[in-house]
Amino acid sequence: MCRATTLEQVAARAGVSRQTVSNALNAPEKLHPDTLARVKQVIDDLGYRPDTKARGLRTRSSGLIGYCVAERRDASINVFMDRYLRALTTEVERTGRHLLLFTAPEGPDGLTVYEDLLARSAVDGFVLSDTRIGDPRHAWLCEKGVPFASFGRIWSDEPQPGPWVDVDGASGTAQAVEHLVGLGHTRIGFLGLEQGNPVGDDRARGWREACAEHGAEVDDRLLARTADEHRDRGEAAALLLDSDTPPTALVAANDAIALGAYAALEARGLRPGTDVALTGFDDSPTAAVVRPGLTSLRQPIERIAERVVRLLDNPQEEPGELLRPELVARGSSLSGNDDGGQTE
Amino acid sequence: MCRATTLEQVAARAGVSRQTVSNALNAPEKLHPDTLARVKQVIDDLGYRPDTKARGLRTRSSGLIGYCVAERRDASINVFMDRYLRALTTEVERTGRHLLLFTAPEGPDGLTVYEDLLARSAVDGFVLSDTRIGDPRHAWLCEKGVPFASFGRIWSDEPQPGPWVDVDGASGTAQAVEHLVGLGHTRIGFLGLEQGNPVGDDRARGWREACAEHGAEVDDRLLARTADEHRDRGEAAALLLDSDTPPTALVAANDAIALGAYAALEARGLRPGTDVALTGFDDSPTAAVVRPGLTSLRQPIERIAERVVRLLDNPQEEPGELLRPELVARGSSLSGNDDGGQTE
Repeated sequence: MCRATTLEQVAARAGVSRQTVSNALNAPEKLHPDTLARVKQVIDDLGYRPDTKARGLRTRSSGLIGYCVAERRDASINVFMDRYLRALTTEVERTGRHLLLFTAPEGPDGLTVYEDLLARSAVDGFVLSDTRIGDPRHAWLCEKGVPFASFGRIWSDEPQPGPWVDVDGASGTAQAVEHLVGLGHTRIGFLGLEQGNPVGDDRARGWREACAEHGAEVDDRLLARTADEHRDRGEAAALLLDSDTPPTALVAANDAIALGAYAALEARGLRPGTDVALTGFDDSPTAAVVRPGLTSLRQPIERIAERVVRLLDNPQEEPGELLRPELVARGSSLSGNDDGGQTE
Repeated sequence: MCRATTLEQVAARAGVSRQTVSNALNAPEKLHPDTLARVKQVIDDLGYRPDTKARGLRTRSSGLIGYCVAERRDASINVFMDRYLRALTTEVERTGRHLLLFTAPEGPDGLTVYEDLLARSAVDGFVLSDTRIGDPRHAWLCEKGVPFASFGRIWSDEPQPGPWVDVDGASGTAQAVEHLVGLGHTRIGFLGLEQGNPVGDDRARGWREACAEHGAEVDDRLLARTADEHRDRGEAAALLLDSDTPPTALVAANDAIALGAYAALEARGLRPGTDVALTGFDDSPTAAVVRPGLTSLRQPIERIAERVVRLLDNPQEEPGELLRPELVARGSSLSGNDDGGQTE
């Protein structure tokens, strides 16, 4: 193990006391400019870096932000947490800190893990993610006065405790409808998530409002819900495709359900793009590689990470912030364009 | 911010000195059993937990293991690092520590980041991942005597410095060949990675040796390489499909290239599974949702994480360890079985 330069070594080399070296680092205004310059030169020459643990004791800061990695029950294709974690690490580093990863059970039981980390002063605050309906963490952290910011809403009727950032799902599905109306579609179905899923309801609202706004048909029979988004093999799409007046285009609440629609179309001898236009949501890696490519809405991952860290340190700036996803058009909505993707 | 119970509060309540409380935690054999029992009761009653930073100063340990999150240049479908990071966090927690995430440039430039973390005593060791050919980190950490373990080989002619765990690529492609031979195929092509890619060469070797062992044809014309695994849209597969004596089955070096083969087959009016059997590697989330499902090889993620953490703390146990992936059979190799997957 390499041994780091100590504060004592800096003091000896500069011919000053330990306190003077400490002042050069923490209270430079107390020193004569010549002394400050000399000590700083020695600090540079010796490559001295204050021990973070000693510094932590003094400033009562660990320099670490806690982040709970959630368990994925299903090998979902809607995975972008890998990219998000990289972006978050980068943003936290920009503020001179690091991320500390931990696991915790969902719900109230998990709070003991958060409590333990705080009691041990292992972290200075938290970035929350994988938020759930009625998530207890936000109110609990607020009450304790612990700094945190959330990626995702808890979908309560009350105002959400603490600062948050989320993707504007309704704006995304509205963009999909505008895209399809622009291609001449007027009967556009929606493949929704399970009943009561607030993310699905938000995305359904964007579809409904945009249909009304852009002169497409508004008809409740154009809405079908999946029973289980992780198991849907096209059942939701089948309901609409087999109706008396099937839609000519489908907006899906996420890419997994859109991929289920590929199967339903294929089973009926139809092809996405050519016969029925189709859009997904999340722009999963799968969207770019299926045939034809799946038109989808890209989550602004890097921007989410940037804003979450900003709000962690400046919670007064915004109570909450919705970020717009970006439409990526591919062959599933544009017949004859099977390769790659283009951003509108 | 909630204020934790202090050592002083425990000492006052138990009517003992600070040193006695410290002994109760760190040197219980020094105390009379009655005193020890009394102090422990107060520790429990007050919910006292030693501050990790104060403890760190004493034991010279941060309780943190560093992990560099790599930048993904491409939104690859071969993503399983999300699952790996969750598994790694769990395994590190089992040993009473946490993961500290950081970013660093690739190659020698990145070593300054590792050096800085060590100089500040921010971590006690590292788990390496996203290893590259000639990766400088392993030798550098070995030289400094820093504890580490690597997921992945650096593919040097010299023995790899330090303990490592990796997936046995050759065993994976050999399983694919055995599976295909069992279905009656004797002319089995291989869709390889770029020339000089050691992962691709390892997987090609497993295919070649298994073909020889199981009586399938051994013919260099059955090997086609992709020019760029992230851009392949079926070019490698096209070379084999358009040859004078095309193979009846294809083993691809990863799922992305196998998905390219779907496009090449479709362009020729052929269907995976029905007309040409096809296998991938990595069991990406995409493999389960494409039509037909892609037979692939699942990386033993949880086992990798378990072994990496074990070797981090017990580097003398194994110089290196190869883990076997697991074949998941789907419709791309089994005609008429389009749904879900089954493990052989």
